[in-house]
This record gives sequence, C-alpha cells and structure tokens, in this order.
Amino acid sequence: MKIRPVKITHQATIHPIASVMIEMGQTKVLCSVSIEEKVPGWLKGQGKGWISAEYGMLPASTHTRSAREAKLGKQTGRSQEIQRLIGRSLRAVVDLTKLGERMITVDCDVIQADGGTRCASITGGYLALQDALALLVEQGTLTENPLIDRVAAISVGIVDDQVVLDLNYDQDVAASVDMNVVMTGSGHYVEVQGSGEEATFSPEELQAMLTAAKQGIEELLQYE
Amino acid sequence: MKIRPVKITHQATIHPIASVMIEMGQTKVLCSVSIEEKVPGWLKGQGKGWISAEYGMLPASTHTRSAREAKLGKQTGRSQEIQRLIGRSLRAVVDLTKLGERMITVDCDVIQADGGTRCASITGGYLALQDALALLVEQGTLTENPLIDRVAAISVGIVDDQVVLDLNYDQDVAASVDMNVVMTGSGHYVEVQGSGEEATFSPEELQAMLTAAKQGIEELLQYE
Amino acid sequence: MKIRPVKITHQATIHPIASVMIEMGQTKVLCSVSIEEKVPGWLKGQGKGWISAEYGMLPASTHTRSAREAKLGKQTGRSQEIQRLIGRSLRAVVDLTKLGERMITVDCDVIQADGGTRCASITGGYLALQDALALLVEQGTLTENPLIDRVAAISVGIVDDQVVLDLNYDQDVAASVDMNVVMTGSGHYVEVQGSGEEATFSPEELQAMLTAAKQGIEELLQYE
Amino acid sequence: MKIRPVKITHQATIHPIASVMIEMGQTKVLCSVSIEEKVPGWLKGQGKGWISAEYGMLPASTHTRSAREAKLGKQTGRSQEIQRLIGRSLRAVVDLTKLGERMITVDCDVIQADGGTRCASITGGYLALQDALALLVEQGTLTENPLIDRVAAISVGIVDDQVVLDLNYDQDVAASVDMNVVMTGSGHYVEVQGSGEEATFSPEELQAMLTAAKQGIEELLQYE
Amino acid sequence: MKIRPVKITHQATIHPIASVMIEMGQTKVLCSVSIEEKVPGWLKGQGKGWISAEYGMLPASTHTRSAREAKLGKQTGRSQEIQRLIGRSLRAVVDLTKLGERMITVDCDVIQADGGTRCASITGGYLALQDALALLVEQGTLTENPLIDRVAAISVGIVDDQVVLDLNYDQDVAASVDMNVVMTGSGHYVEVQGSGEEATFSPEELQAMLTAAKQGIEELLQYE
Amino acid sequence: MKIRPVKITHQATIHPIASVMIEMGQTKVLCSVSIEEKVPGWLKGQGKGWISAEYGMLPASTHTRSAREAKLGKQTGRSQEIQRLIGRSLRAVVDLTKLGERMITVDCDVIQADGGTRCASITGGYLALQDALALLVEQGTLTENPLIDRVAAISVGIVDDQVVLDLNYDQDVAASVDMNVVMTGSGHYVEVQGSGEEATFSPEELQAMLTAAKQGIEELLQYE
Repeated sequence: MKIRPVKITHQATIHPIASVMIEMGQTKVLCSVSIEEKVPGWLKGQGKGWISAEYGMLPASTHTRSAREAKLGKQTGRSQEIQRLIGRSLRAVVDLTKLGERMITVDCDVIQADGGTRCASITGGYLALQDALALLVEQGTLTENPLIDRVAAISVGIVDDQVVLDLNYDQDVAASVDMNVVMTGSGHYVEVQGSGEEATFSPEELQAMLTAAKQGIEELLQYE
Repeated sequence: MKIRPVKITHQATIHPIASVMIEMGQTKVLCSVSIEEKVPGWLKGQGKGWISAEYGMLPASTHTRSAREAKLGKQTGRSQEIQRLIGRSLRAVVDLTKLGERMITVDCDVIQADGGTRCASITGGYLALQDALALLVEQGTLTENPLIDRVAAISVGIVDDQVVLDLNYDQDVAASVDMNVVMTGSGHYVEVQGSGEEATFSPEELQAMLTAAKQGIEELLQYE
Repeated sequence: MKIRPVKITHQATIHPIASVMIEMGQTKVLCSVSIEEKVPGWLKGQGKGWISAEYGMLPASTHTRSAREAKLGKQTGRSQEIQRLIGRSLRAVVDLTKLGERMITVDCDVIQADGGTRCASITGGYLALQDALALLVEQGTLTENPLIDRVAAISVGIVDDQVVLDLNYDQDVAASVDMNVVMTGSGHYVEVQGSGEEATFSPEELQAMLTAAKQGIEELLQYE
Repeated sequence: MKIRPVKITHQATIHPIASVMIEMGQTKVLCSVSIEEKVPGWLKGQGKGWISAEYGMLPASTHTRSAREAKLGKQTGRSQEIQRLIGRSLRAVVDLTKLGERMITVDCDVIQADGGTRCASITGGYLALQDALALLVEQGTLTENPLIDRVAAISVGIVDDQVVLDLNYDQDVAASVDMNVVMTGSGHYVEVQGSGEEATFSPEELQAMLTAAKQGIEELLQYE
Repeated sequence: MKIRPVKITHQATIHPIASVMIEMGQTKVLCSVSIEEKVPGWLKGQGKGWISAEYGMLPASTHTRSAREAKLGKQTGRSQEIQRLIGRSLRAVVDLTKLGERMITVDCDVIQADGGTRCASITGGYLALQDALALLVEQGTLTENPLIDRVAAISVGIVDDQVVLDLNYDQDVAASVDMNVVMTGSGHYVEVQGSGEEATFSPEELQAMLTAAKQGIEELLQYE
Repeated sequence: MKIRPVKITHQATIHPIASVMIEMGQTKVLCSVSIEEKVPGWLKGQGKGWISAEYGMLPASTHTRSAREAKLGKQTGRSQEIQRLIGRSLRAVVDLTKLGERMITVDCDVIQADGGTRCASITGGYLALQDALALLVEQGTLTENPLIDRVAAISVGIVDDQVVLDLNYDQDVAASVDMNVVMTGSGHYVEVQGSGEEATFSPEELQAMLTAAKQGIEELLQYE
C-alpha cells in the first residue's frame, strides 16, 4: 500500500516567516506560519507559548464550488473541527514552555482539494513550523529548539471491504469508514479518529487500518 | 474497571415524542426526540429519512459558569463537533430508508456536567430514539422498526500512566490522553476518537484503552 | 381562584452557588445563580453590584419543538424582553450597594413549558437568589444581607370574558388579554404588564385582573 | 397635568404611502407606512393581513451619541421590545381580516429623542396608518376601512413621589417608576406597562398614574 | 448645466454639537457631528485626531422600502463603501494633528432619497463639520481651526449620450455612466469615481463629465 | 514608465472550468471561474445572465498577517468594495443576454500581496473568464461568445510628486494619491477611481495619471 506522490515546496510565499506548499496527489495545501510576541489573555504570565491553526478552503478548490465562508459569515463546523485537530497535533510535538510567551498561528489554506486535506495540513503545517522554529533559533530569538518530535498524518479507509491508504476524493466518497491517524516520528499516536458514516467497523478492520496508516506515516516522514 | 453509576429516566418530559434523562455519576443530560414529516432539501425525493443531533450545555451546568451560546451569537466549535458526532453515531444504527421521508432531531442538553457529556448524549440519545421509534411502530406510522443495532459510548483516558474508564471532570482535566469510543451491541465500532493534548500515546496504550472501553460499553448496554 | 400546584426544589444542581427548580403545574424552570467578583465596566468604582438574568428555553421544552437560539445565532426578541424583565424584578428587592462590586447572573432555563415561564422564572429566580445571598452572609463574604423584600410573579388573563389566574399554555393561547404582575412581599408592584393581542380591555377588567393577581402572589409567597 | 406641545405633520416624506412626523416636546419621530401585497408564510391562505412595526434611533438623536445598530450587527433588546409593543398596539385597532392578504410595515425612526419615543411612535404610527388606510379605501383597494378604533399612548411616572405625565428625558432619568399606557378612543386599554427600576410602587400610585394617563390620552386623541 | 435647488438648515437637531440638514432637490440628508475626547487604539499617542463617517438610509426613504440594516444584521457593502468615501473626503480638508487626540464621527442619515445621497452627505457633512470646529475654537477647546480647505461633492453622468449634472433617481437609473466628484474650494480633487454599469465611457466623455462636475461644485460651494 | 513583470498561468487548478494565476511583480492572485445554470431570483425570466466576483486575501498573504475574514464573521468593507468593482468591470465587456440564464462567479483569491491586488484581480479575472467562455462555445453550450471587448486594470499614483505606475506595497503606502483605472481593449474606461488619503490632487496630476495608466493598460493587454 502506497501513499500518493508527495511534493513539498519550502518558502512557498515571501511574507510569512515560513511557508510550505504540500501536494499529496492532486491535493494542494499552503501552510504558513506567523508569530506574534504575545499570548492570549488566558495564558499570560505562565512563561509559555501557544500554537493554534486556522483552516480554510478556497471556494473554487473543490469539485463543485463551495460557498465562501467569509460571505456566509462564519466558519463551518467542519472547518472549526479541522483547525482544532491541526492545532492539537502540532502542540503535541512542541515544548510550549521553550517557546516563551509567543503565539504561533499556522494557516492551512486549501488551494486544490482531492481528499486528505486535513492530513496534508498537519503534515505540511508541521514542516512549516519546523522551518520557522529553526529560523528563530538561528536568529537567536530562541536559545533552544522547542520541537520534541516530528509529526505527520495520513487518512485510511475501507472501500468495498478493502483497506485503502491516503484516499482521494472519489475513494473518500465511496468509503464506508474514514480514519485519520496522526503519528509522531517515534511511532506514538497523537490522534486516532475513525468514523463510519451510516456504517460500522470491526476490531479487525480497525487494526488493519492502523497498520496501513503506520506504513503511510513512515513513508511520509521521509519527506523534509 | 467500572463505569460510574448509571440512571436512566424514560419519559423525562411531557412534550417530545420521547425523552430520556441519563445520569452517569454527576453528569446529567436530557435527550429529547422530535420528528418532522419532511426532510431537508438535499434529501428530498430519495425516500429516505435523516437523523441529526443538537448539543448544548446550560450555562450553569459547568464547574464555573460558561457563556450562553445564544448570547454569544453562535455555537462553539466544540458544540458543533459534538453534535456532528452524536448524529453520525445514531445514524449508524438506523436504516434510514425504513424511516421514510422523516427528519428526526435529537436534542442533547446538559443539565449538569461532570465529564463524559458527549458519551452520555450518545447513549441517552440512543435510548430516547429507541423509545420514539417503538412508538412510531406501535402507532402504525412505521410498519417496521428501522433500528438495526444498539449503540452506546464511553470515554476512556490515561491519567498518571493508568487507563481510566468513564472519566469525571477532574480526571478529564488530569488526563494526558482522552478517548471516546462509540460501539454497537454487536461489538462493532462506530467512532474511535483518541487524542493527546500536549501528549502522545503508544500503540500499546491505544489497545489498553480500547479493551477498557469495550468492557464499559458492555456494561452500559445492559441499561434499557 | 387558585394557582396551579407549586413545587420548589432547592439545590437542584451541584455547581452553582444556588439553584432552584420551580414547577408551576407542568411548567418547570431551572434557576441558577452565579457570582463574579467584578462588575461590568459602566459600574466600576461605584461600590455597587449588579444583578442580571438570562432566559432560555430548551428546544424540546415547548409543545412543538422550537429552534435552538444558539443555532439561530441570536436570542429572540421575546427571550431578551423576558430576561430584562427578570433582571429588573430581582434588582427591585436588592440593595445593590450592600452587594459590593459583585455581578450576579441568574440563569432561568425552561426545562418544560406550559404557560407562565416568565413568572415562574422570577419567582424561582428570587428563591435561588435568596439562597445564594444567605450563603454569602453565612460565609462572611457579605456582612449584611442586601435583600430588602421578597418578590414573586403571576400571570393573569381574560379567557371567554372570565378572569383566569396562572394560565397554562392552552389558556394562554385562548386569552384575549394577558397580564403579568410582579409584586413584593409588602404588596408593592415591581412590574405590571398587561397587553391585549388583537383585543383591548376595560378599566374594570384591569382591576379584576389586579385583584386576582394579588391573591395569586400571596399564595405564591408562602412557598419558600 | 398637561402633556407637552404636540405637532403632527402629515405627508412628511414623499415615497411612503403615508408618513407622519410627530413631535411631543423635543421628541421627534418619523412614522412611515409601507404596504406589500403579500403576507408572511405563517399567515398565508387565511385571508387575513398583518401589521408589524420597526423602531430605530438615529445615532445622533440621543443626548450622547448611541452606537449605530446596523454597525453593531443587531437591534438592541430595547429596540426589539419597543417595536413589538408598537405592532401589538396598532393591530389592536385594526380588523385584520378586512385588510386582506396584505402586510403593512410601520417604520418609526427617532430623529430627536427627549423621552417618550415609544409612545410618540404609537401615536404617530397610528396617524400614519389611518392616512394609509383612508387612501387604500379611496383608491378602491379596500372596500371597507379596517380601522375599528383610534389608539394613542402616553408615558407617566413618579418623580420625587409626584405623578408626572409625558416625561421628558431628564424626568425619565429621575423617575423611580416608569409607565406606558396605550389606550383606544373608546377608553379601553391596549397595553399597560409599569415598571420600577430599583424601586416599587403601591396600588394607590398605580391608580394615580392610570388616572393621569387617561387624561393625557384624551388630550392626545384631539390631534388628527 | 445647473444643480438642483439646494437648501441648507444649520442646527437641524438639538443634541449633537453640530448638525446640518441638506436638501438637493428631493434628496434630504441629516448630517450630525459627534466628538469623543479619545482616539481609536491604533492612533493613540500620535497627538493626532481622526474623522470617520457613518451612512445609513431610513427604510422608507427610498422609492420602494428597503430592508432595515439593523435587522439584516449588517450594513450593506454599498453603505460601507459610501461611509468610507465620506470619511476620506472630510479628512482630506482637515489637518488632523491640529485636531488633537479627538475622534469625530459624522453621521449621514438619509431621510429621503432621490439620487445623489453620497454627494449630499459629503457636502452636508462638511458644513456640519465646519460648524462643529468653529464652535470648538470659540469654546477654546481648539486654539486653531484645523480646516485647511472647503470640500463639496457632486454627481454627474451620461444619460442618452448627454452629460447630466446632479442626477436624480430616475436619471441615475437611466445613466450608462455614473460619476462622483469630490473637490476642494481651491479646485483640487479629493475623489474621482466614474463607473460604467454594463457600459464604458470614452476619454472625451470623461473630460466632459469632469468639466460639468467642476461647474456644479463651484455652484455648491456658494452655499454656507 | 513600465509595469512590473507579468506572468500568466492558465489552467492553474483542476476543478474550476477555468482558472488563471496572475503575477504582477510579487503580487499573486488566483482567479477561478465557476458557472451555475441558474440566475439569482431578481433576474429570473429575463433571458439574461449575470457575472459577480468574490475577493479574499489569504491571512498570510500580506506583509503582516491579517485576520481571517471567515473567523471575523464577515468580509471587510474593503473586500466588499473590491469585489463589487471586479464584478462591474467584467460585466462591462460581456453581453449578458448572450450568456443565457447563467450565473458566473469569478473568485479572486490573493495568494501573495505586494500592491495592486484589485487590478490584478480584474486583469486575471478577465483572462479566466475569456478561457471559460471560449470553452462554453467550444462545448456548444453557447452558440456565440458573449465577450464584446477585453478589459484590464492598472494602479497609478503620486509618490513624492512623481507619477508612479503599477505601485508595489511600499509605493502604495508612500503615495499621497492612489488611482485605479479599468480600461477596455478599445481604449474606453470602465472605471476611474482616484482618491487622496489626507491629500488632494490637481487636474493636471489627474491627466498625468490617466496618461500613465493608459500606457500601462496597453502593455498589460499584450498578455494573453
């Protein structure tokens, strides 16, 4: 079982401290890191930083155009759920106390969608974060790199009773079970989210998906 | 490993076709079923029904008062994420074509929160749904009961390196990993959601949590 | 003329400093008191506290399910009008300067509606407030109890040219005139709100309603 | 006891079917009537019309500038409460079945505020409505005038233990009790709303206010 | 080519520091100036003031009633665009450093619309601003008048291949090109905005419109 | 006077019927065309189509990160103003009756901003629209191409008393006057928008800017 071709472009845009364009098959996500020298109110005075993510899809990035969230007047529940997942995944591999009182925002904007955008956002977001933190160390802003592990994410599902890795849009639509696995370089899980839509899955199927996901993550972790 | 004391009150209120008050320890959720004889636009003409859920917490239900979402002008991302999960879990055990062109809404309102409100909402929401569907069959509205399985949900986590089942609020705050497992009467998964907040978990820990959760679900399924 | 059976449950939930479940006939409202040790900006530095109320109905609390306000993205005009009324009624019997710079929020959440929810919210909200203030005195937070009187509220209306006290939902729908009277233990009015919907009422009818309301309030004030 | 000088300007603006500028002392409200040949969904097919009101204050109409509601993104609770009151008051003197399936909107926009804007809106709104309905009869759109009575409104309050009629802003701020009375030409009440803000009022004070209000309404009803 | 009859009423209302009712033909706009002794956060500590404008139309001011923006929950894009234009135009003739750390808001509320409301808002808004600043100098709040020039605005367009000055609503609807010109007393432009709606215009037409606009502005500037 | 280097990439993404990435210096805008086989309600039954545009900036596209509009809950006034301009500009060169009852949406999303994003959106949006319409003719959906002219846009301004063409961000910030000119292939204007921010400009400066803009547009129109 193989993942789709991956392409990583570092320094994809000029303004953010770091940005990575990640492509997995036809899926393209631009991940940009911004840093502010202050933390949200609830974290003040704890000598600790914070990382949050924001996720959005360009209206024309999907198979049929989707409504512009800014015009709808809100982020959809799906977007909010995804950006909470990305944020948790990135925070899991960073020692926030070593970050100091800084707020990092990782914007994951989907330029072209063909399945797996949340996983691509995590993988690409991590790489952009890694670039940004390395730069902060190089500039002397940080004395020590707060990264404690690497992280990547892959989707896996069951289509026609077969485990399929890194589903594209057509496979995703056909899947009875859809799972996203976020794993560190040391083989620990950060997130495991499997759900059947009008379907269920057996413990054996869960194991088969976890095994496939692990293989996909290992392949992904070779990309820098 | 035991779950907290469970108390189920059927016909908890008078207006909805069915309502269940579920208590798990100090957590109390009122689950109410409403039915409309029409489906949302995107489902029209498919001879199929739909089930969705809505979730909310009373402002004073939490340890410290939380803001009223209606006054904030929106549901939080958390509420939206939870109600999407409840809806998916209930749809997984219903044959929507046997429901006919009907829309079922399951309101899960937290009266008192002490951890595990989303799992209690699924378990209680299922029982209220079961009551409502039985009534529809009894009344002759449905010729056949569309339920294809039972469903229940339990939380499990890791606190101080120990697997803990059915976490209360204090345990939830202390947990490095938090997992919610939704499972059917026949032992299949509907949802598996494990996440580390600023922490990770090993494949062994995942297995231990899945084992504990299965045990909890089996205990829960004894309640009618 | 009698009011419907009343049931008062103190300490109805565990988290708020005080909470009262009030039942008037089939109407059930949970009234919870929360306290913050600060006042809104416009009151700062005046050595005075504030009491405000929030009102909401669970979607399934009504005869036919009503939309969840949090999902609509706003409180209805009706909810806002009612919570302003509850707040004014409670402030009328409290010496706000004796409260110190504290902000009290009284949440009135309708669990089951069968007419008279705004009046039940005032009566129940008062009892919960009384519990909370007694506790603050007992704890030594307040040196003197800021309560200056008791307060209760009752609805009265005209149905088929007859004055009816404490209307349930069916009577409320049938009434040509609907009146809410908020009165103190010492027999003074806090609020008198009578309105005809596509109808009017004579000065004699007004007097008859005021007389009936007084009788209802006196009965209500016997409940502690 | 006298009301402030009243000035009524009919045909105050050119576009609406009828508009009246009402001045009571320094308070100026522009009341405009618009008609649509359709009713809201919930009223369709009942052969009946509807009248609703909308109320707003120009930001610079008040003693100190108030925020523009359109920019706040919502009408305040106060504006919503007032426009509901105006609508109920006007509907009370119209036979909605004689109106046919028509929707009338009465916009009451405060150009200058000096107390009593809600009462001026009702009185002026009624006069504009009367102009519009007369025109519809004259044009043959309606065969019979649906008006069944006249209506006017006045505020009354207690300032320094004295009953004061038609309060201006300074009196309103000083009043311990504030009451609005809406009454028909035949001397029936449409609305009676008395409230004490951090104060209460005795049954005798209520009677004194009702008496004063009746006198004010009779004076007001002489203006055409 | 002549502009429509102009009428300027100073001190149109009593509360704001200055207010002007401007009428151009049937168009009537009330322009009110309010002053706060503080500046927005982003301007703090620069010893400089700010002027912004807000624009709104009364619902019944237009040929057919338009929806109340406060009820829609937002200002339309058109309103926002116009108020940004008014603000820029006024700031262009004021030395903001001489204003001190003060925030001026100019509310332009359309009482009756018959074309050219944005231009009338600029011309009337300027006159109200001039009144307010003169008063601040007179009161000694300002030592020097911050005005550096006068400003006025006029619309011009092409209807049936003819240049038309100061278009009323019917002409505006018929125009293929619509242009707004904001010009100072010394003959410099502040804004030039010409746009064809489903039409274009030649360089010669642009010149003809600019010439006509200059003439209109000169006429307008005679009004005080 | 020269414009910045231009790069046009057709078929920039796979899902929309046409998409163009336009680069002007460091500014990069992705312009995507979507088509629906229906028109907005107000245009129904007129045998005519419509073209509208939507504009947005990725949060990390600017020199310092800007807030995500979807999270703010609305498009800024600036975004709305720009998308209205783009829509008008494109409609000016299309015969909407030849389009049939179709709705075209042109999404202009700024990937990287360095001045001139609204002009790049118009120029790139036009090229994408041209691609889409050619395809519709090729597919036989349209019998005749509804394009009646070409269109492009350029910014011009005055920096240190010098006319500057195609301003980048630093020049834009330094400019006392900022002008956007939208012109057709046949040399007619669609839009001319010049504004001084806290500054004015003379008729001679206006002419010099128009001359420079014409030169820039001619250069731009060579790109296909």
